[in-house]
Amino acid sequence: MSRTRIHNFAISLDGFATGEPQTLESPFGHAGQRLHAWMFATRWWDESGGEGVDNAFAQLHGPGIGAEIMGANKFGPPGWQDDPDWTGWWGPHPPFHTPTYVLTHRPRPSLEMEGGTTFHFLEATPAEALAVARKAAGESDVRIGGGPTVVREFLAAGLVDHMHVVQVPVLLGRGVRLWDGLESLEDTFAIESVSSPSGVTHLTFTRKG
Amino acid sequence: MSRTRIHNFAISLDGFATGEPQTLESPFGHAGQRLHAWMFATRWWDESGGEGVDNAFAQLHGPGIGAEIMGANKFGPPGWQDDPDWTGWWGPHPPFHTPTYVLTHRPRPSLEMEGGTTFHFLEATPAEALAVARKAAGESDVRIGGGPTVVREFLAAGLVDHMHVVQVPVLLGRGVRLWDGLESLEDTFAIESVSSPSGVTHLTFTRKG
Repeated sequence: MSRTRIHNFAISLDGFATGEPQTLESPFGHAGQRLHAWMFATRWWDESGGEGVDNAFAQLHGPGIGAEIMGANKFGPPGWQDDPDWTGWWGPHPPFHTPTYVLTHRPRPSLEMEGGTTFHFLEATPAEALAVARKAAGESDVRIGGGPTVVREFLAAGLVDHMHVVQVPVLLGRGVRLWDGLESLEDTFAIESVSSPSGVTHLTFTRKG
Repeated sequence: MSRTRIHNFAISLDGFATGEPQTLESPFGHAGQRLHAWMFATRWWDESGGEGVDNAFAQLHGPGIGAEIMGANKFGPPGWQDDPDWTGWWGPHPPFHTPTYVLTHRPRPSLEMEGGTTFHFLEATPAEALAVARKAAGESDVRIGGGPTVVREFLAAGLVDHMHVVQVPVLLGRGVRLWDGLESLEDTFAIESVSSPSGVTHLTFTRKG
């Protein structure tokens, strides 16, 4: 059975998954790289990196995934829809390697990139987008890639089977919160946590049988 | 040198230190006892309780403390100021055992309880209250007892030396947040975290030299 998974989703101690404002130069706003420094230090990201608990979690991102769904704000800075040449933040080799569905109110033609990533642009509800992505993924799982608004919508719609959140010990004070409107999420998920020597805490949410 | 400390301060995963509404029957609102179940299960709280990491942290609450400061909302439910007979939630033997300063805009005469607790009622800024409490504490430390609004005010005023926060894996969705307005707290505190088999994560904040 194909599952819907979230991996390496970083938030600050005060629950923000991105700072503000999001711009071309600063995709995470005033958060800069602070939410992802733990990830850049893993062997999964960089072959000179570490192989401890952070790496063990980080490398779960890819295996078994057959499609990704992301929000418009993950694909580009505000206004990217007005730039017909925008192809995402990631250059010619995006790190997705699967069909990747970008939720937007202004769809455009699909973009086939190198390395197996094809961006498709969809105006759809979470359930509709998941049905499309599942078909593309076949027996494999679908990853919800973020940002926080999209993750929250999929959680609120009861469409997530597994989520890995990384809580980073910084206080951003402002930005976009992950947790808003998700009261009692613990009723439907088993939550485990493990703190890492790097200072971050890994939280896993696994849907209860 | 007398320090200012916070202990066993529990918050939900989404950062709420109390639910809503706070009433005589439900001091933590819809949170019920969920934020403190980890504490009730420690040997420090109950002699049949456990002696693991939760107990190791919990029992740091008392030693070395010579006075406590608390907010009006910790002392009683909304409107307690209108009840001349209200003496706090804790019955005749409050668990503070020191002079305890209650911040309120409507001070009343001091209340001497059994077991060493005397409640004093102060209309004062955090810095003013701390000066009074330090004098009472002598060489000992002053504990900031909460609730979240008071903790936040003392943190924002730079008056806290050590803080122990316990993050409980529930999402309350509403209530009073601890973290609002504390951007970049990590600049002045070393933050460590350790997850407990009970499911909670202990976070310590120690003021940098």
